[in-house]
Amino acid sequence: MRTLRLTLAYDGTPFVGWQRQAGGVSVQGLLEDVLSAIEGAPVTVHGAGRTDAGVHALGQVASVTVRFAHDPATVRRAMNGNLPASLRVLEVAEAPEDFHARFSARSKTYRYQVANTPVLHPLAAPYAWHVPERLDLPAMQQAAALLAGTHDFAAFQSAGTPVASTVRTILSSSLAPEPLATGAERLQDLVVYEVTGDGFLRHMVRAIAGTLVEIGRGHRDWQSIPGLLAGRDRHAAGPTAPAAGLLLARVDY
Amino acid sequence: MRTLRLTLAYDGTPFVGWQRQAGGVSVQGLLEDVLSAIEGAPVTVHGAGRTDAGVHALGQVASVTVRFAHDPATVRRAMNGNLPASLRVLEVAEAPEDFHARFSARSKTYRYQVANTPVLHPLAAPYAWHVPERLDLPAMQQAAALLAGTHDFAAFQSAGTPVASTVRTILSSSLAPEPLATGAERLQDLVVYEVTGDGFLRHMVRAIAGTLVEIGRGHRDWQSIPGLLAGRDRHAAGPTAPAAGLLLARVDY
Repeated sequence: MRTLRLTLAYDGTPFVGWQRQAGGVSVQGLLEDVLSAIEGAPVTVHGAGRTDAGVHALGQVASVTVRFAHDPATVRRAMNGNLPASLRVLEVAEAPEDFHARFSARSKTYRYQVANTPVLHPLAAPYAWHVPERLDLPAMQQAAALLAGTHDFAAFQSAGTPVASTVRTILSSSLAPEPLATGAERLQDLVVYEVTGDGFLRHMVRAIAGTLVEIGRGHRDWQSIPGLLAGRDRHAAGPTAPAAGLLLARVDY
Repeated sequence: MRTLRLTLAYDGTPFVGWQRQAGGVSVQGLLEDVLSAIEGAPVTVHGAGRTDAGVHALGQVASVTVRFAHDPATVRRAMNGNLPASLRVLEVAEAPEDFHARFSARSKTYRYQVANTPVLHPLAAPYAWHVPERLDLPAMQQAAALLAGTHDFAAFQSAGTPVASTVRTILSSSLAPEPLATGAERLQDLVVYEVTGDGFLRHMVRAIAGTLVEIGRGHRDWQSIPGLLAGRDRHAAGPTAPAAGLLLARVDY
């Protein structure tokens, strides 16, 4: 037996999300189907982050234990030859046998992209939340900074499978304007919230993004963040921002 | 009567091209439908470049003559409210009554994007031609430079409606590596051919791109360009590169 580590990028638009499910095409399902065909037996692929429907990935990591002996370059080529263009295996590497994409991860980094312009550029549309009203970036930046550290993030968690603890450590939390560009052509200025943490609750980054945008719109003070965290009330925080604006940027081990 | 100048961006993937036609959704058709509804009578929209199916635009320009009196900002808002997200009106401006997007244009600039990497990034896939073999960029750059100037481009024209002359003036023709990036995240290094000219023959930029890639692959010398131009033989030049890699970048007046 040997364990492989896969680095993946995908455009989440056509998928029902990471997780294999009865109806619809999932990232995990596609990967398992392709790898099972190479293995000649069913295999299970574990992803570092179980991205929701419509969420994208620039550097998702997955692990799989297999018996086949093909070298990593051959595996990558065989996989990409049998996957849709919206899902690519960027890298295949040998990993220690006990490597697990989710449990071995030290931290994950997500980006949430907001297109804060009157018109949403068509080439940015699949990867951003369009908020045309002028946003107060300094206020959003103050709020983003207040989220760093170890906190109980219950106020930013959607209902779902119960978790043992809602305490997470955010290592870095910042917001900045950044361009989406193809070479010299600047397509759209985006407002990007980037957050690195040891783990995230269900919809946590999108709930934070929704709250930051309410602060940017002036509907809420940036000073309200500590109170929101202390209150642990999901209804007191902002709405869950749309999936399209969220990208799993990278996973560190 | 008044003439409006529209600046447009679109992801060409879902369209049959610029030109209105019996089957399928065209950019011109969508714009005419929306503007005719505002006008309460049929209007005709003229585009600077009649982009083919699958070709994108970052700065297409169109002109339309109308009777309605709404101010440009209102027209833009009304249009974008009734167009798909893949087609956006970036700007509406008043223009001299005799302004015609095609006939008044001094020059047009196209970009042709090649993803010269083993794996095509999913977020670049709709906007690039994937050529995994290592390309000889200096040879491609030499060839690109030889295309600048006034030449007979018959060797780079696809069959179609006959044109009076196949002589065109290329004001600038260059090739360079450029990143496709979302902020700090570099998604894919692209090889971008950018060309500005007073006019282009049918499929001309794609035929040039196909020829440049053959040169990059070492299947053809960069010194062959003057002979190709002189020979006027479409079969002697390279293949027509895929539509997805082509973007109409801007039109100058």
